[in-house]
Amino acid sequence: MSPSTPFLSVDLERMQANIARTADAATARGLALRPHAKTHKCIEIGRMQLAAGAVGLTVATVGEAEVFAAAGLDDLFIAYPLWVDAARAARLSHLAAVGANISIGVDSVAGVERVTRGGLAGRIAVRVEIDAGHHRSGCEPGLAGDVAAAAVRAGIDVEGVFAFPGHAYAPEGRERAAADEVEALTVAVAAMRAAGVTPRVVSGGSTPSFDAALALDSPVTELRPGVGVLGDAQQWELGSMRSSDIALTCHATVVSHAGGRLVLDAGSKVLGADRAPWATGYGRLLDHRDARIVLLSEHHAVAELPEGAELPPLGSVVRVVPNHVCTAVNLVDELAVHDHGTDAQPVTTWRVAARGRNS
Amino acid sequence: MSPSTPFLSVDLERMQANIARTADAATARGLALRPHAKTHKCIEIGRMQLAAGAVGLTVATVGEAEVFAAAGLDDLFIAYPLWVDAARAARLSHLAAVGANISIGVDSVAGVERVTRGGLAGRIAVRVEIDAGHHRSGCEPGLAGDVAAAAVRAGIDVEGVFAFPGHAYAPEGRERAAADEVEALTVAVAAMRAAGVTPRVVSGGSTPSFDAALALDSPVTELRPGVGVLGDAQQWELGSMRSSDIALTCHATVVSHAGGRLVLDAGSKVLGADRAPWATGYGRLLDHRDARIVLLSEHHAVAELPEGAELPPLGSVVRVVPNHVCTAVNLVDELAVHDHGTDAQPVTTWRVAARGRNS
Repeated sequence: MSPSTPFLSVDLERMQANIARTADAATARGLALRPHAKTHKCIEIGRMQLAAGAVGLTVATVGEAEVFAAAGLDDLFIAYPLWVDAARAARLSHLAAVGANISIGVDSVAGVERVTRGGLAGRIAVRVEIDAGHHRSGCEPGLAGDVAAAAVRAGIDVEGVFAFPGHAYAPEGRERAAADEVEALTVAVAAMRAAGVTPRVVSGGSTPSFDAALALDSPVTELRPGVGVLGDAQQWELGSMRSSDIALTCHATVVSHAGGRLVLDAGSKVLGADRAPWATGYGRLLDHRDARIVLLSEHHAVAELPEGAELPPLGSVVRVVPNHVCTAVNLVDELAVHDHGTDAQPVTTWRVAARGRNS
Repeated sequence: MSPSTPFLSVDLERMQANIARTADAATARGLALRPHAKTHKCIEIGRMQLAAGAVGLTVATVGEAEVFAAAGLDDLFIAYPLWVDAARAARLSHLAAVGANISIGVDSVAGVERVTRGGLAGRIAVRVEIDAGHHRSGCEPGLAGDVAAAAVRAGIDVEGVFAFPGHAYAPEGRERAAADEVEALTVAVAAMRAAGVTPRVVSGGSTPSFDAALALDSPVTELRPGVGVLGDAQQWELGSMRSSDIALTCHATVVSHAGGRLVLDAGSKVLGADRAPWATGYGRLLDHRDARIVLLSEHHAVAELPEGAELPPLGSVVRVVPNHVCTAVNLVDELAVHDHGTDAQPVTTWRVAARGRNS
């Protein structure tokens, strides 16, 4: 029997197809793939990605690195400009001591100094983070040489440079973000070379910009898509994935028809509350493509169907596609894994091993 | 030593003051208080609310009820129109068998029939949910008599009626929502009496409408505020709490000054992604009231300060007020508890015992 609703379910066949398609596309271009494991936080999925040819995994926090390394998935890039305080230095040092191959992000000379003060020179590598137009973290591309040179002077291995073109998350934004990333990484690589540092890895990419990045002539050597392994309503609405590729849904029960609408028992505490300005709602229904979730609270999703459409009956179960799969997965302790197209007994369950590892 | 950032911290003195103020206000009006425990999900906080005079707790799911009942906090109203399938019937039956005093919401005759089919008549009570203008779940107030009468015919104890005036979550919405609630509950009570059912409990309220509800002449006998025990940026911006009453913050480290802005290591996976259309950002900084979080991703919050303001230095720790405390608390396994005004060693930690109990 499936668990009580609401619960998150993985369509195994679709997920495997997503892993294979992404790996094949990168291989065909001669690019390394380092998928971002923050999306799924599951050891089992990370293992499948590595088996399909990924060179390692990307994570966002030291805590995520600890979880994956403990399971033997220990070639890890922490794609974040960590502020290495004493506690984090000790944890990173321990990871290195047990044989994990760790690199972290830095976006300032001050950040490099923390790595040095933490006694991590020679134990972990760094990659310089640059801003490719998303305007979150990352230094100006032209300053990548200064940061890299400071690291080299401190005896720190500078593995390379990376960017996250997060502005690909906008309608019509995918091609532009991919092009911005190429331009910014080209500038950064030149700045690093001018400072006497040759990056071995030039890393970029996101799920929405993935296809566009593959088509460009660029200095990129590695891509780090996250969401594409499972998919979500954002990718569906951006056009970077088809609804038939979406491998994660939340099974929810129709608990009310109040107001002539569909009230589901899945709310923001299992779907996440992400809603980009361009999103058409708080999530989609996989089997009712004209439905929109117009109101979301912690345990209610209220969906409207087109005028005259018959509402799924009270007590029936529908499949909701969360807007942002990374935050949905982080809300549950385990994922039910189903064979494609069935909602009977799950094949197995996977523990969301790195859930909540924010620090 | 405090945990690594980001982590959630409770200001103990402020929280105790919030509990006392709310309890005193209800007592002064002769109203019962049944705080919504979905906000904090902690046994320790529930115990303090009961010690201050609450008649019991409100929860949102059977899973939350199980957690609180197991700790002996077992007078529980599940304020949700549950669809009682076989699994949920068995769990509710077990709660009743171990002596918990459970009532649940119903908003349709079909929902009542599920209670009957689950064999729960005589074991749990129901309260009819009505829509007081929020347009989420709940039947039309005038139909409350039909639902109540169906339950009575099936031998189910109808404890009363309830509403949630969620449209109080809007600028200038608080007074109107409180008035709408009084009107709707008055209609519902009349409809139930006309159907031969006298409600013993008439339950309403939310944190933003709390003060307005106290000031009105109304049939309400019980209030169920949730957020007010801890507070959040939504209440601050709605004007229903002062910033000096906010008892929960996320401690976050400044990891970058990229773009001349503040980049913090707290993102949507610890703050939640809630952002109402009227919110001024993705959260506030308790000690920098003019700062706004303008960009939020999973592990980054980017805050802008007014032109010319000095940025808190790299590596310093700032206190972020999440927009919606209920979803933030649900993202962590424990809360650090600090004495007021200190950020040294926490006094203790509380387990978020009902985290993730969505079903």
